[in-house]
Amino acid sequence: MSSKVAFLGGGSFGTALSIMLAKKGTKVKVWDRNKSVVDDINIKKENIKYLHGAVIPVGVEASENMEEVIKDSDYIVISVPSHVVRTISREVAKFINKDQIVISIAKGIEEKTGKRLSQVIKEELPLNHIVILSGPSHAEEVAQDIPTTVVAASEDIKFAENVQDLFMTNKFRVYTNDDLIGVEIGGAVKNIIALAAGISDGVGYGDNTKAALMTRGMSEIIRIGLALGGRRETFSGLTGIGDLIVTCTSMHSRNRRAGILIGKGTAPEEATEQIGMVVEGIKACRAFYDLKEKLGVSMPITDVLYKVLFEGKDVKYGVYELMTRDKKEEVY
Amino acid sequence: MSSKVAFLGGGSFGTALSIMLAKKGTKVKVWDRNKSVVDDINIKKENIKYLHGAVIPVGVEASENMEEVIKDSDYIVISVPSHVVRTISREVAKFINKDQIVISIAKGIEEKTGKRLSQVIKEELPLNHIVILSGPSHAEEVAQDIPTTVVAASEDIKFAENVQDLFMTNKFRVYTNDDLIGVEIGGAVKNIIALAAGISDGVGYGDNTKAALMTRGMSEIIRIGLALGGRRETFSGLTGIGDLIVTCTSMHSRNRRAGILIGKGTAPEEATEQIGMVVEGIKACRAFYDLKEKLGVSMPITDVLYKVLFEGKDVKYGVYELMTRDKKEEVY
Repeated sequence: MSSKVAFLGGGSFGTALSIMLAKKGTKVKVWDRNKSVVDDINIKKENIKYLHGAVIPVGVEASENMEEVIKDSDYIVISVPSHVVRTISREVAKFINKDQIVISIAKGIEEKTGKRLSQVIKEELPLNHIVILSGPSHAEEVAQDIPTTVVAASEDIKFAENVQDLFMTNKFRVYTNDDLIGVEIGGAVKNIIALAAGISDGVGYGDNTKAALMTRGMSEIIRIGLALGGRRETFSGLTGIGDLIVTCTSMHSRNRRAGILIGKGTAPEEATEQIGMVVEGIKACRAFYDLKEKLGVSMPITDVLYKVLFEGKDVKYGVYELMTRDKKEEVY
Repeated sequence: MSSKVAFLGGGSFGTALSIMLAKKGTKVKVWDRNKSVVDDINIKKENIKYLHGAVIPVGVEASENMEEVIKDSDYIVISVPSHVVRTISREVAKFINKDQIVISIAKGIEEKTGKRLSQVIKEELPLNHIVILSGPSHAEEVAQDIPTTVVAASEDIKFAENVQDLFMTNKFRVYTNDDLIGVEIGGAVKNIIALAAGISDGVGYGDNTKAALMTRGMSEIIRIGLALGGRRETFSGLTGIGDLIVTCTSMHSRNRRAGILIGKGTAPEEATEQIGMVVEGIKACRAFYDLKEKLGVSMPITDVLYKVLFEGKDVKYGVYELMTRDKKEEVY
């Protein structure tokens, strides 16, 4: 019997995955609070606001009724921005049963508590198994069947393997990993580095500059990731360096695009507004700034970005500082 | 007293470094076998063939007379493609004295012997100290003073430090590293991965696909690099992941551009011709294919690329194979 999947939140990546699953013959329901998104999916067969241009197949049904969407589903995919994950999970708790597997596809950490999203979900849904799906996977490309690789991560590898079977196609390869911490931290911190990389592009610096920034950014991901309990190998994988690369270099990246605007002189709030969707890197920057201070981990790029975003530091001077501050030996 | 620097070979990166040093007030001489390059540098003040558009300052003088260029120089920079490094070093041997420091900026290994370029130079110039300058540094950007970071590597760190002082500016940061092997292997293998990444772009695959390819490519660099005696940290640095990123994503990259042409159906030899300069990745692919066979190291991307380049394998099928061959756990 084929699985049934519920997506809570009709954002771009959730919609792309819905399309992919429906093409495989999986029955998909999408819940969204926003009537226009629900209507667009059901009637226009296109998520005009979040995934313009991709045709939604017949197997996808949208609804504003969360209970109805969750009922009878085998998998519940939480597909909302990181700052809404707790609220939604709390709402889900009313309708979920313990055999339903929860999948989270957001990338970030909870701003106030510094908790990973799987921790947040676990607090709200303590009886359910949680799997994180992450990796270099821009929604626009997934919806077009462009070859993509991701990782399904869970503490108990068995549930990651279930999710692997659920999503795997010839064009969408799913690997499993039991280093939940490493996978979640990589996915969250890379958005900070992508913002910084975008700023470098926006200021008019070059590919050499950005490569330097990304290399140093990788060191930041590894340092904070190890401090939080992740494994080094995970950061060299798809959810670490792989996702960092795609987020820093693709024009599909909202974080990079927001950075470009900021680099050109747009105020951070205005840049977010122009992007029209949540810029996770801004939230992640605040959260990891606090975490690194608490843990005593060196994160110079996060440091400078924090000052640019929240303390009005001049962008060009920030990049200049990053280029000139480091020691002379290449030590990692 | 300010240093004098001789560049042997007026290619793009050598010319960019010449311009940068001359702006610092360093006296620079450039030797080239090609009269038109010499004349362009001396008379037109522009290296039209290899670095179109960059103005060459007064402090740079070119000559066809190698002896004259080497005489009185403190540093001899070997700035020719990898396959000419031995011939040029042999010629240099006639004129060099043991106090002159040799700097090599080519990225590759000797095709027939599988030797690193510093080994090749050492065989021809056994009395001289050798420093490798490497990292994410496209010539076009260096010539424009775009912020760039590189690594000076030598077995005895003292000579790397000399070279650091020689080149360092506010916009061109030089780090030192004594892992000569790691620096050289990273610089050579990344050209193979860049060719493959270019092919993926040329075939019409996306940013997700390329990120996957680069992530796997990084594993290949690490595996062969460790087998040859390099240090893991070096591969996470500027000459490893940093240079891989810039070479796989920048349009300045000849290797990537050649790959794009091949991905679109151009024959490898014709692609090289269209690029008009040496495509190091093609040579590196042959050399590392032999090395990995000898050492028993798994390098699946190099493998597939070898078959595409030299055995007429279909490009699309090659990428398909890469996407589908791997195991299901994300292990590195």
